[in-house]
Amino acid sequence: MTTSNHQFPRGFTGSTASAAIKKAGRQDMALIVCEDGAAAAGMFTRNLVCAAPLQVSKRHLLASRGHANAVLINSGCANAATGAEGLSRASECVDAVARELGVAAESVLVNSTGVIGVQLPIERMLPAIPAMVRSLAGGDLLPVAQAIMTTDTYHKTASVEVEHEGRRCRVSGMAKGAGMIHPDMSPPQATMISILMTDAEVEPAALQAMLERAVDQSFHRISIDGDTSTNDSVFALASGKAGPFPSHLVEQALRQVAKELALLVVRDGEGFERGIEVTVTGARTQQDALTVARTIAMSLLVRCAVTGGDPNWGRILAAAGRSGVDLRVDELHLSVGGVDLFREGAPAPTPLAERERVFRQPLVEIRLDLGQGQASDAFFSCGLTTEYVKLNADYTT
Amino acid sequence: MTTSNHQFPRGFTGSTASAAIKKAGRQDMALIVCEDGAAAAGMFTRNLVCAAPLQVSKRHLLASRGHANAVLINSGCANAATGAEGLSRASECVDAVARELGVAAESVLVNSTGVIGVQLPIERMLPAIPAMVRSLAGGDLLPVAQAIMTTDTYHKTASVEVEHEGRRCRVSGMAKGAGMIHPDMSPPQATMISILMTDAEVEPAALQAMLERAVDQSFHRISIDGDTSTNDSVFALASGKAGPFPSHLVEQALRQVAKELALLVVRDGEGFERGIEVTVTGARTQQDALTVARTIAMSLLVRCAVTGGDPNWGRILAAAGRSGVDLRVDELHLSVGGVDLFREGAPAPTPLAERERVFRQPLVEIRLDLGQGQASDAFFSCGLTTEYVKLNADYTT
Repeated sequence: MTTSNHQFPRGFTGSTASAAIKKAGRQDMALIVCEDGAAAAGMFTRNLVCAAPLQVSKRHLLASRGHANAVLINSGCANAATGAEGLSRASECVDAVARELGVAAESVLVNSTGVIGVQLPIERMLPAIPAMVRSLAGGDLLPVAQAIMTTDTYHKTASVEVEHEGRRCRVSGMAKGAGMIHPDMSPPQATMISILMTDAEVEPAALQAMLERAVDQSFHRISIDGDTSTNDSVFALASGKAGPFPSHLVEQALRQVAKELALLVVRDGEGFERGIEVTVTGARTQQDALTVARTIAMSLLVRCAVTGGDPNWGRILAAAGRSGVDLRVDELHLSVGGVDLFREGAPAPTPLAERERVFRQPLVEIRLDLGQGQASDAFFSCGLTTEYVKLNADYTT
Repeated sequence: MTTSNHQFPRGFTGSTASAAIKKAGRQDMALIVCEDGAAAAGMFTRNLVCAAPLQVSKRHLLASRGHANAVLINSGCANAATGAEGLSRASECVDAVARELGVAAESVLVNSTGVIGVQLPIERMLPAIPAMVRSLAGGDLLPVAQAIMTTDTYHKTASVEVEHEGRRCRVSGMAKGAGMIHPDMSPPQATMISILMTDAEVEPAALQAMLERAVDQSFHRISIDGDTSTNDSVFALASGKAGPFPSHLVEQALRQVAKELALLVVRDGEGFERGIEVTVTGARTQQDALTVARTIAMSLLVRCAVTGGDPNWGRILAAAGRSGVDLRVDELHLSVGGVDLFREGAPAPTPLAERERVFRQPLVEIRLDLGQGQASDAFFSCGLTTEYVKLNADYTT
């Protein structure tokens, strides 16, 4: 299994267009097509204010029993909180794609990302669709990955090649997301958007199960601001063009691609300066470990300390103490970057210069042992910066 | 019942000292004394990393069955995550106060606020205590309220006078807190610190019950950063010097003082520029209303939008949608500052200038009706600013 250059797997093509959805002059529509059809699976935001395109995509996945020919995505407008009019506009886009491709509407999936509460400018989007279909091409993922960006500062792609008994298949994926990042998705019902594609042959139900496990270990282990979006979704598509492969190999590749993409999303968190990885060990249950790790990684004060490279580790313990998990201070062992900060109920005598050094790494690695059991888990976030606040204090206007 | 100037109620005196705990040259120790003893009640942080002085105070309240003669508070050092040594240092301070006053140690309560994980410099604090006791004086609360400040930009005091059948009693209080503010306290087990004092006669059990209800409606309805401190506490002391009063009148005054203090804490949130009041109506239960209100008020993206005066109201709906409360988008009615933004499942056609105006008020009043029932609740926070991040990125060093 090797990480390779970022190409569409066999059976997939893509194209982009510019519809001046929010700003003129950039590619803001992306179309991915699997001409001969693909097994399809999806994970959608649990946010009850669920965007119109996701409502359409859920319905289509159910109606098609997990098959799709195309995914249409736009940036610049989320088409969320837009009522019946929003649903109707999402459907018009889907219908136009289906018509141009000569496939059923239910085999087209759709999502949008951008500002909430604004109607989609379909008068500029619909005319672009015929040319998008005519210009579909395989090969390089990058143009499509770029068109789904909003406040992202770089495109996010990952690709893994699997070799088995002389044959090869590939899992490739793309993602966007730099703010409103705290994915919380459930199966056919998560503005982090990701699309995972493979040319391995996988049945829809198996693909859905693989996707759920992969998302749980990747996108559900990251947060930038705690704000679960109205538009989060991950789609997985399997064209089958490479034939069948042992499912554990395909799943392993899918997990690796999802994990790489999730980490790329965190590293591009709005105003990103420094990453945070929190590993909690010695917990009674994995859920306990995850809860403590997530609470620490999301604490505003911990995140500010990381931004400042300020070794104010007491904030880490304070976050653990309010996580809701039963713990005893005397049993905690805290280290950052391999340097002890708290153990045996008291501050460790680590010199200030050492403490400062570990808080000033590009990735601040926080490790807390609860001293209770054998379970562990990890969660990723980033320092909270003045740039994040500036970006989000002036977004729509 | 009238708000009056900020004086100690009868029976209470106070004094301050400078022990250069974090910085030289400011008053950082405060002592409040009720020479003839007071009924005492307390609420303490639920954070499992509970500071040493709070462990001492809890034990004392239990041992004394709700009586106290004094409260000692210092700023500059939280004495949290400091192990057995921290407990011992807190006790030494308490013992010194008890000795000077000629009272039992268990009748002295104590708390600290400041950096976590650093030992209390008792070598500078203990020598200051005799002079503090000698300089105790009634009258003006302000010097004591100033000595408990950390990053606060102003002192916080409130006072209400109750008149009943020609007699008067008073409830006065002080509070500190500008960061690590998300009080979550429970009875005899909250670094928001507040002390409420009255000269009305109230039995300890009744005082505790009144305090719990007052805190629930005040400090438990505010958040600045979601970080529950290791040192949050509210103490209530009743000297009895004004004799008995109808308990509902005393409780009403206690609630008003607590509410005023809680709002003063929010208005002094670190980096404060604009306040947020979220009122949720039409909920099935008050708990639902509170959950939705709190989720909106604490959303980083909502708080950034408020800072920018950016009418990005979709973020308000998105926060409601992830709150965990069952709701239907079509039934939501959102207004800000009395101006409709979303109703009947679609954006309201309010002109942009109007939407901007209501997002640029000193207090942004968000009102969301869930359309489900009759219950309501409210929660207070403030915009997230670049100044907050700067303050907290460089705190210990």
